[in-house]
Amino acid sequence: MDASEFRRAGKEMIDYVADYLENIRDRQVTPDVKQGYLRKLIPDAAPETAEPWDAVLSDVERVIMPGVAHWHSPRFHAYFPTGNSYPAILGDILSDAIGCIGFSWTASPACTELETVMMDWLAKLLGLPDHFLFSSKGLGGGVIQGTASEACFVALLAAKAKAIRDAKIQHPDWTDGQITDKLIAYNSEHAHQAADRAALLAHIKCRGLPSDSDLTLRGAALAHAIEEDKAAGLIPFYVLASLGTTGHCAFDNLTELGPICQAENLWLHVDAAYAGSAFICPEFRHYLAGVEYADSFNFNPHKWLLVNFDCSALWLKNTSLLTSAVQYDCPIILDSPESEQPMPDYRHWQVALGRRFRSLKLWFVLRLFGLDGLQKHIRTQVGLAKEFEKLVDQDDRFEIAVPVRLGLVCFRLKAPGTANERFLKKINQTKKLFMTQATVNGSAVIRFTVCASRTNSEDVLHSWKIIQDVATEFLDEEKARTKLKMPSLAAYIQ
Amino acid sequence: MDASEFRRAGKEMIDYVADYLENIRDRQVTPDVKQGYLRKLIPDAAPETAEPWDAVLSDVERVIMPGVAHWHSPRFHAYFPTGNSYPAILGDILSDAIGCIGFSWTASPACTELETVMMDWLAKLLGLPDHFLFSSKGLGGGVIQGTASEACFVALLAAKAKAIRDAKIQHPDWTDGQITDKLIAYNSEHAHQAADRAALLAHIKCRGLPSDSDLTLRGAALAHAIEEDKAAGLIPFYVLASLGTTGHCAFDNLTELGPICQAENLWLHVDAAYAGSAFICPEFRHYLAGVEYADSFNFNPHKWLLVNFDCSALWLKNTSLLTSAVQYDCPIILDSPESEQPMPDYRHWQVALGRRFRSLKLWFVLRLFGLDGLQKHIRTQVGLAKEFEKLVDQDDRFEIAVPVRLGLVCFRLKAPGTANERFLKKINQTKKLFMTQATVNGSAVIRFTVCASRTNSEDVLHSWKIIQDVATEFLDEEKARTKLKMPSLAAYIQ
Repeated sequence: MDASEFRRAGKEMIDYVADYLENIRDRQVTPDVKQGYLRKLIPDAAPETAEPWDAVLSDVERVIMPGVAHWHSPRFHAYFPTGNSYPAILGDILSDAIGCIGFSWTASPACTELETVMMDWLAKLLGLPDHFLFSSKGLGGGVIQGTASEACFVALLAAKAKAIRDAKIQHPDWTDGQITDKLIAYNSEHAHQAADRAALLAHIKCRGLPSDSDLTLRGAALAHAIEEDKAAGLIPFYVLASLGTTGHCAFDNLTELGPICQAENLWLHVDAAYAGSAFICPEFRHYLAGVEYADSFNFNPHKWLLVNFDCSALWLKNTSLLTSAVQYDCPIILDSPESEQPMPDYRHWQVALGRRFRSLKLWFVLRLFGLDGLQKHIRTQVGLAKEFEKLVDQDDRFEIAVPVRLGLVCFRLKAPGTANERFLKKINQTKKLFMTQATVNGSAVIRFTVCASRTNSEDVLHSWKIIQDVATEFLDEEKARTKLKMPSLAAYIQ
Repeated sequence: MDASEFRRAGKEMIDYVADYLENIRDRQVTPDVKQGYLRKLIPDAAPETAEPWDAVLSDVERVIMPGVAHWHSPRFHAYFPTGNSYPAILGDILSDAIGCIGFSWTASPACTELETVMMDWLAKLLGLPDHFLFSSKGLGGGVIQGTASEACFVALLAAKAKAIRDAKIQHPDWTDGQITDKLIAYNSEHAHQAADRAALLAHIKCRGLPSDSDLTLRGAALAHAIEEDKAAGLIPFYVLASLGTTGHCAFDNLTELGPICQAENLWLHVDAAYAGSAFICPEFRHYLAGVEYADSFNFNPHKWLLVNFDCSALWLKNTSLLTSAVQYDCPIILDSPESEQPMPDYRHWQVALGRRFRSLKLWFVLRLFGLDGLQKHIRTQVGLAKEFEKLVDQDDRFEIAVPVRLGLVCFRLKAPGTANERFLKKINQTKKLFMTQATVNGSAVIRFTVCASRTNSEDVLHSWKIIQDVATEFLDEEKARTKLKMPSLAAYIQ
């Protein structure tokens, strides 16, 4: 494909993208395909010679689209939002064209430098403490990771390395393995799996602590666990607090957890993967109270800030604790020159060596939306969740399961047992909308998330009507099914 | 930015990309900027309101390009190539538009399924053993990782988990920490830092073994180390063999290492990050001899196969050893349905939970180049390295330091001490080309890599002329500098 073919194909692709996104409501939200569908549609080996562009482009509709779950459909309400915007796509195109590998300043000065400034811009937008900013000229700074899982993992590695060093001061005869056996990390029972998975990868014990009735991890639960574990000879060293848990968008209490971490020398990591984006609106910043105690903080602009995946922002109060934990020097890579304003060599801040020029899409998004454009996006989506909450409230068959804080509504049919699991399955089988589930007090609740940036009130109403229709059908079936064997349940459903 | 603005801006960006890449020879290879240049060029906070597209696009030349090291300049000869092609860019645009997160089959069937087929296509192109293919319906399969670092890390985690399980069968009273203290991994002293870094992240001892005069890790060195370490009470469990080392493009001997790994129950991982792409040409496959012993194998299509970063291909003979090591289940994510042809839930194959639709760019590249187009690319680049080697050979002041196998030429000035380091620095200071260095027998050699896909014979000659001119100047300076104090060196230089 030469440049003139690319100009033609590229412009066709731009139009295809705009057509796809503008008409996405016309597509069924989740696909009809069965596992293994795609292998039957394409050859079993790469072609010997080049195929024409038109053949490839037309295969997008024939091969790919039938198997796509349309995350940017306004009726996609599963998981959490994932960013997608025209400005971000434009930034990514430029990033691909430059195609640099930004592992060190020398290898790609602009890639490193724009990232440092964008991390400062972001931190200011969220109202994070100054000590996380490069511009504060302290020990802090930020970096773009691929995902919150990676951010949590490298934060944990930094904390682990520090904890091992600390333990060796008191017990120089202990081996790394002996210390690692004793280390214990904490999070809320409702924390994202990224927290537990980071511990698994780092080979660290991890304990999910009970939350209060608001699904909030409180200081007392942490203090109790620390006491218990210390008595058992373990070394508590790390707490992951969630601002906006995956299941319920609950918020752990940093003002209580922070002082305990400080007193007990525990690393406090704050994971605000989803909810972090909301902090660009001052009215949501009360959830950040206590963030000044955090040693590290991450959130995903690629979730709710209209930046395309991958772009997970991580800040550290003392970045050298991370770099000293994961740095391994390579003789091939020229070190960056000494300078009065030393720039980070970001390869020492992450699992991977290589990295893309991801700050470009962030720069494009922040400039082409502006703060007020992004705030409007967040407020609109929170407003839509409130609209949905109201609709649920107005239908006696349903109840809200968890207070609605941001763009997630956890609700349920007033029905016992596994009814909500089966009800959700039935809704998703329509493929006209898509939701997932979580658990509150051991029973299933349905998660309705406002995901796509194009979602409007009509979409919410449209989804709700489907939910109501399926509910009517489902409850009739349940009634028929249970009438004979469980009269009390049938009465309950009536 | 609405759809019509995007159509206009997107098409402008497509033209910008084509103009940039087609005229890249006009740009200085590495930038003039000093550390901290960029912060001075842009505001210190995100704008309150949206800026117009034209302001953003014009800032690309004002703010970004002055700090770009042009990896796709035909005079960029540093590190290794990184992929960049029009077909890959088109695939990435589509991936961004669909913007799905492919952590499970359910969340994105097409994303998972295309990846499984592309991994099979790739394995066949390289001539890898059948047991790595999904289509063999055994335990094997492949996955796209972000980088070789990540691929090596997860392979090591799988091996570590297996080694701990194995050790506990014999010693049920040993803790994980006690076993981890005893585990030892091996690689060549010339292996990529990714190998050592993976060990650092997994908290595993790692030993770089001496290579032979061809910079090849041989069986005898491994057997000796295993014997020694077992005698010291350690547990050898993992070997990373390199096909195409970073420094010198040397090849470890799999036919010798493989049987030892098999006999001693060591996991054999093969890292062919750069050289792997060459195996699409049958004439280079002799380097693969012994690959049937490998438990896992990775190479980076994003290096030399014209696929844009990130796209690192990893195969495992028994994928369940990986998934069982890194799997952590999340209550929010619906499991994929049971099926006769079960599809991988790729979140269990990697560090991150989320993942992009990266197989699209691979599909686009394989189809729009075809096997013969890709083979031509590899053969052209190897041919250019041979041309450069000949030029070096014809100039008595230089020597080839390592036999040229693929697209990398390690050469040096015939000058003692640190002359080559200083010479390289002087070349790079011209900013008209860019090279890095490696070490052979403790002294520096200069690495000339054929990187950009647009590189042609004239570019190689152009770079060589600069090298020769700088050499003349450098040797004159050296002569003047050393004449008085080191007459013998001066004579040598003459």
